[in-house]
Amino acid sequence: MNKNLKIRISSGIDTAMGPGKAELLEAIQEFGSITKAAKKMKMSYRRAWELVNVMNQCFKYPLVLTAKGGTHGGGAEVSELGITILQNYRDLETKVSRFADKELNQILSNLSQK
Amino acid sequence: MNKNLKIRISSGIDTAMGPGKAELLEAIQEFGSITKAAKKMKMSYRRAWELVNVMNQCFKYPLVLTAKGGTHGGGAEVSELGITILQNYRDLETKVSRFADKELNQILSNLSQK
Repeated sequence: MNKNLKIRISSGIDTAMGPGKAELLEAIQEFGSITKAAKKMKMSYRRAWELVNVMNQCFKYPLVLTAKGGTHGGGAEVSELGITILQNYRDLETKVSRFADKELNQILSNLSQK
Repeated sequence: MNKNLKIRISSGIDTAMGPGKAELLEAIQEFGSITKAAKKMKMSYRRAWELVNVMNQCFKYPLVLTAKGGTHGGGAEVSELGITILQNYRDLETKVSRFADKELNQILSNLSQK
């Protein structure tokens, strides 16, 4: 994926899925914790929690499941729907790079800074 | 193009091309004027001019050429590069809808509001 290409799925005024949210989901998968995922992404716990909250509200079912307990909750995991959405989003990105490579490169090659 | 899908090409912290900028370029093509294009898009002249300025800065050559004269300038046109970039952007969108239709629809069908 080219870092200059940003694909977002909006829902009303919110972004339901995008580069930052996808990366956060992957970090939650890796660590099983919003706190640790936030740390990896160098964002505040509050910010990570906000992104999770927006995602959970945007979809019919939550993408991230949290357990209560402790100061910052007792762990978090990506739901089955979350795994599906994340996979679809990554596949969508891959297909853009594969099938619209010519168009994308023509735009990128004309940027004044890469 | 599904209105929930937003494709943006960034350049550093700026968005070089995206849904709003593409629409603005098309309006400038239609009216030959930033003022009239802004009016069609229900945005202020100042806002339209800002978007034009960002686009022009992001690319090696300006996408919009303006002529001096009058309060709001003496007309504007989309440059040859602007026409090329706009076409590439629209083709890119079309290809996403065509080739990533399954992934996109699976995400969209799980949104709590369409």
